[in-house]
Amino acid sequence: MLGALPTRYFLTCGSGDASTELNAFDAALIRAGVGDTNLVKLSSILPPRAREVVLYELPKGAMIPLAYAERISSEKGALISAAVAVGIPQDPDAAGLIMEFSRLGDSGPCEEAAREMVREGMETIRGIRIREIKSISVSHVVQRVGAVFAAVVLCP
Amino acid sequence: MLGALPTRYFLTCGSGDASTELNAFDAALIRAGVGDTNLVKLSSILPPRAREVVLYELPKGAMIPLAYAERISSEKGALISAAVAVGIPQDPDAAGLIMEFSRLGDSGPCEEAAREMVREGMETIRGIRIREIKSISVSHVVQRVGAVFAAVVLCP
Amino acid sequence: MLGALPTRYFLTCGSGDASTELNAFDAALIRAGVGDTNLVKLSSILPPRAREVVLYELPKGAMIPLAYAERISSEKGALISAAVAVGIPQDPDAAGLIMEFSRLGDSGPCEEAAREMVREGMETIRGIRIREIKSISVSHVVQRVGAVFAAVVLCP
Repeated sequence: MLGALPTRYFLTCGSGDASTELNAFDAALIRAGVGDTNLVKLSSILPPRAREVVLYELPKGAMIPLAYAERISSEKGALISAAVAVGIPQDPDAAGLIMEFSRLGDSGPCEEAAREMVREGMETIRGIRIREIKSISVSHVVQRVGAVFAAVVLCP
Repeated sequence: MLGALPTRYFLTCGSGDASTELNAFDAALIRAGVGDTNLVKLSSILPPRAREVVLYELPKGAMIPLAYAERISSEKGALISAAVAVGIPQDPDAAGLIMEFSRLGDSGPCEEAAREMVREGMETIRGIRIREIKSISVSHVVQRVGAVFAAVVLCP
Repeated sequence: MLGALPTRYFLTCGSGDASTELNAFDAALIRAGVGDTNLVKLSSILPPRAREVVLYELPKGAMIPLAYAERISSEKGALISAAVAVGIPQDPDAAGLIMEFSRLGDSGPCEEAAREMVREGMETIRGIRIREIKSISVSHVVQRVGAVFAAVVLCP
């Protein structure tokens, strides 16, 4: 790292249930297809001209940068949701913005909140035009300990 | 990364106000000049012989390691502060120590607290002599949701 | 990073006491032998065929990826513990799983909890066989502000 620039990305999400918080989170990562990697959390910018790819099998144990939302709960029966949204700018030389949101309740309002945060960050705060917003969300009803996870994964 | 060694650094800070916590934090990052990068949080050591540089335009979306303090509040009218301090050792082969602090209230005591933490970490705990302590701080009165951010950014 | 793959690892732990949370944590890192590095927290997978090494002197200020448990307390007299466990799979091409746990109280149950989390994650959730579980733990009685830290450090 130290200046490394991701060139590709994909959106993914998952949920899991287990007997501890960390195991539930791990199970959600597995469902999202990133369970056997070493995730490195970033503050969340999409580099200019980054290209969306389909989720592929990442090398086991590799260090993978990403921006993510998560929610973990041990309240049986609770509905939990997580969402990410990424704004693609009209200007291909501008950066995109990734926003994360999680909440108690359904995933629809969760995903809409993440999209609205992208609009505020790009249009209102940065004053740049959005070409498109991509987003993904997941919800889960807690059985023992439940976790939801939604991410924009950045790749070399 | 995996052993990458930063050779340059700069101190920066900023504040922001928006309608959500993440947007306020993002606005503070923009004001600090690092809003379009992917920040990677470190535990905070200044490598020996690292050289201070002036804030420059970082590549959009690049992964940038840093140590930072932040505070986010939605209590309208509240005064929030964040500060970082970095101790430069007398021995050029020793590591420097970065400390972060944030609080409700003015930035002066916040910055002094970070400087005192550097003194304790270097003189009392490590038993090494300090040549100089550099520090920076910022404060902000919350309007909707407010955020303050102060950082030592490490560069290749 | 961006896909970097650690090939070696070691387990370490330490405790510290100081006048602030960050100084106590820093003191624990020093005792664990990683106090002068820039730690980057990972989500915690052991790459296939990674080799255990003895703790060695890491370059000062280098960026070091790791998975860790920590606990900080300012309750004088409190006993705090932190542990990590890493499961080594029977299949050398499978990934290992690192789990972290911390608690108020003695280190024995803390370490056992981390080991049990590895069993659940590898056997129950991933359905893979474990060859061996390595673990380490530390406890500390708080004097002023106390910190415990246990980690699996990943190296190039």
